Amino acid sequence: MANSPSGDSVTDRVVRVLETFGPDRTVQTAAEIGRRAHLPSSTAHRLVAELVEGGLLERDDDHRVRLGMRLWELALRGSRALRLRQAALPSMERIQARVREHTQLAVLEHDTALFLERLSHPDAGANITRIAGRLPLHASSSGLVLLAYAGPDLQERVLSAPLAALSEGTVTDAAALRRTLAGIRRSGFVVAPGSVEAVSTGVAVPVRDETGEVVAALSVVLPRETPPEVAITELLRGARDIRAALSRARDQ
Amino acid sequence: MANSPSGDSVTDRVVRVLETFGPDRTVQTAAEIGRRAHLPSSTAHRLVAELVEGGLLERDDDHRVRLGMRLWELALRGSRALRLRQAALPSMERIQARVREHTQLAVLEHDTALFLERLSHPDAGANITRIAGRLPLHASSSGLVLLAYAGPDLQERVLSAPLAALSEGTVTDAAALRRTLAGIRRSGFVVAPGSVEAVSTGVAVPVRDETGEVVAALSVVLPRETPPEVAITELLRGARDIRAALSRARDQ
Repeated sequence: MANSPSGDSVTDRVVRVLETFGPDRTVQTAAEIGRRAHLPSSTAHRLVAELVEGGLLERDDDHRVRLGMRLWELALRGSRALRLRQAALPSMERIQARVREHTQLAVLEHDTALFLERLSHPDAGANITRIAGRLPLHASSSGLVLLAYAGPDLQERVLSAPLAALSEGTVTDAAALRRTLAGIRRSGFVVAPGSVEAVSTGVAVPVRDETGEVVAALSVVLPRETPPEVAITELLRGARDIRAALSRARDQ
Repeated sequence: MANSPSGDSVTDRVVRVLETFGPDRTVQTAAEIGRRAHLPSSTAHRLVAELVEGGLLERDDDHRVRLGMRLWELALRGSRALRLRQAALPSMERIQARVREHTQLAVLEHDTALFLERLSHPDAGANITRIAGRLPLHASSSGLVLLAYAGPDLQERVLSAPLAALSEGTVTDAAALRRTLAGIRRSGFVVAPGSVEAVSTGVAVPVRDETGEVVAALSVVLPRETPPEVAITELLRGARDIRAALSRARDQ
């Protein structure tokens, strides 16, 4: 439908335009968007004008372009992300109050851990995740939990690909990772010291929905020297409460 | 670009497809989407297939369609909504802990109040707002604050249009609303008993960004019989703290 001579659809081009925006690039000109999305200038200007017309993009007084509030609204109001995050937020707040470190909720998306929510305590230590940011499955506590309960096809695909190290502590050996995943399925949690950053330990547990399926990972990031026991207890309790909240939300 | 015989662009049709999803309709078939978006069946099926390919929609095992996590990611990671909400969340948590009622953050979007965030206390009373939901400007405390600091063109447009009552307490007289808006600009807050629901009082204050511009309304929903003084004090403090957080975020 409505393909260009190069064979990409208009939908492809819309996605490419949206992909040029990010946390460090929230405002651009139409020309910059065209260059970054690899679109001819006239195409970029027309497409940006259409997206502004539809509210997915907005123009400011200087004619620069940013993501529209309408896009945010359309993306959220019917999304599983919002439902999951609403069910999880009270538990995350309680965990953050007890553990006083970063508390995070992540889902599996295109072979990575996508972070839906992050609460940060003012006194908490280092942490590179952001909301709507991603981390590799093998190199984050959240990702390891999501991978442990994923289908065998996805596990093989991830474990047979080159495994990049994010820090010296990242486990990149497929056999060692297989043992870690089996351990997670037995114990129901993971403690991953230094896998993302040398100074931090990720602790994560699976979150199940009302049907028992693992739909997310709930995690905290502790300073490397902090014992993980309190965090594990709080995370397991949080995951139970989120499952109950999802059951109640379905019944409403 | 890529217009159909009826003159609507592909971007229009993408927006219409996304608009068919909502909090009460998170999963649909391609045929249902086509009917609700007023698209011919073959067009709907091709467009849904393209949107699934691009990750903006996802198909489940029963071939039903829902909004994609990729859409959520693209909409959030470069958005002002996320920046504002991250700056506001710690203050909203503190207000909720003190006032123990619904605490909300709203922005002006297409002549309505669009709710970016809502924290709900388990013991809190009635409240019809939802995240990514909207309320009319004249009929909610958040909307009145946003309207009070909006440009004169927008104020006239809203006040000269028919003003619907959401409940018996909604003020629908333009002259009375003009006096309310002037009062908000003088006092820096609004107390709106029963304007949305007879049993509730909305209390709202403006949130300014680091440049001093009003960018949002911060509000709580109290039971009608609760005196508003504590809420006003907490909201004003929260708005100051959010402005400081936005200044720090810019400096980083």
